[in-house]
Amino acid sequence: MEHVHTVRVTYADTDHAGAVYYANYLKWLEIGRTEILRQHNLTYAEFEKQGLVAPVVHVEIDYKESPKYDDEVEIHTTLEAIGTTSITFSYELKKGETLFAVAKTVNVFTKDKKKVSVPEQIRKLL
Amino acid sequence: MEHVHTVRVTYADTDHAGAVYYANYLKWLEIGRTEILRQHNLTYAEFEKQGLVAPVVHVEIDYKESPKYDDEVEIHTTLEAIGTTSITFSYELKKGETLFAVAKTVNVFTKDKKKVSVPEQIRKLL
Amino acid sequence: MEHVHTVRVTYADTDHAGAVYYANYLKWLEIGRTEILRQHNLTYAEFEKQGLVAPVVHVEIDYKESPKYDDEVEIHTTLEAIGTTSITFSYELKKGETLFAVAKTVNVFTKDKKKVSVPEQIRKLL
Amino acid sequence: MEHVHTVRVTYADTDHAGAVYYANYLKWLEIGRTEILRQHNLTYAEFEKQGLVAPVVHVEIDYKESPKYDDEVEIHTTLEAIGTTSITFSYELKKGETLFAVAKTVNVFTKDKKKVSVPEQIRKLL
Repeated sequence: MEHVHTVRVTYADTDHAGAVYYANYLKWLEIGRTEILRQHNLTYAEFEKQGLVAPVVHVEIDYKESPKYDDEVEIHTTLEAIGTTSITFSYELKKGETLFAVAKTVNVFTKDKKKVSVPEQIRKLL
Repeated sequence: MEHVHTVRVTYADTDHAGAVYYANYLKWLEIGRTEILRQHNLTYAEFEKQGLVAPVVHVEIDYKESPKYDDEVEIHTTLEAIGTTSITFSYELKKGETLFAVAKTVNVFTKDKKKVSVPEQIRKLL
Repeated sequence: MEHVHTVRVTYADTDHAGAVYYANYLKWLEIGRTEILRQHNLTYAEFEKQGLVAPVVHVEIDYKESPKYDDEVEIHTTLEAIGTTSITFSYELKKGETLFAVAKTVNVFTKDKKKVSVPEQIRKLL
Repeated sequence: MEHVHTVRVTYADTDHAGAVYYANYLKWLEIGRTEILRQHNLTYAEFEKQGLVAPVVHVEIDYKESPKYDDEVEIHTTLEAIGTTSITFSYELKKGETLFAVAKTVNVFTKDKKKVSVPEQIRKLL
């Protein structure tokens, strides 16, 4: 189960070395995991209305090569694993054959600041 | 009544033209008006605890010359005017003789999404 | 000559008052003016390859009402005026009947840090 | 060899869940490693003037608890290891007893896009 969403590198994303600033990749990861859920008619905004919050508790990224300004970047997102209270996504950021970065995030579901089970609708996706 | 606060240009602030990205100046304006209040023992965080929110309703900036990466930038903030429900700050961003930008912002005080009077403690400052 | 481009509000865009942080609107304005050019087969990246840089020298925004997380926001961009060395864009950020903000930017064309004429291809657009 | 630098959480840093947006921690890591070098009279800006660029090739963060708006956050940075062409920093983000996050980054030194040895002045620090 992989989802692809394309974004374009803006001036806002770049830094004075001509690369995409390393923090800005994390905004693309956010878009990746939001859109893979939306593809299955699940929205994070909807979970929030039920009082759920799912903060990222872990992120890791390996940067291979930076895209340039105005490049299109494909965010390939995979729902990797579902634990009792957490979900793990993996990501590849690419353009054709060029691999820009690989990444992994872990979100934990919480309600009133306490860990809760991953919602059944998400659990079904795997 | 002017307040000066110094920040340093980070990689995060810059863009691939080697300048500071134009949106990032607004983060410095936020720091300027927060710190001018703190200098008078007023904190925006404290107003929030009383249920006040003071969104920016207007901003304008004239960009003269961009600072470079690792430059120190002085944010000169002045409380320009106080209306019934709004306050106006003006700003100069400088380094020595070099003027990077001049700016103006207007914040409106609200409570439960309705406009309210500017707090007396701020009114006293002018 | 108006161009419409739609973006979606991400977590990255928001602040702890539940609104879109006021600096982040400027990233949308960048997208608006980039895409209105692309619609006419002009790309800012292409101008850069010719040694042109067109920094923003003025921005002003009136914030009316903030969009919420996960809202879609339409960026309505208009090429307002073309001077000898500068171009002025105006913007409306909307969702249906709701007007979030109106804005104006001025870019100046430069080469080797000196002002130059607005490229003929852009001049033709008006 | 540990260095401590304190920053304050701004509106710009936060998101609509009331936390610091997860990408913004990486800006603090940048400040941490820049300032630990400056403490030893080394500036990244100076290395750049020699044609060196040192992109981040790996980052990992464990988020424990988010600081709140207007909190002061201590960035504790340690130069962890020096390889032939890379340097590894570790970080703890804290406020008193509260640990917000732990992180690690790896930078690789390059010149003309080719890996080069870590500069002798940095090598001496360990």
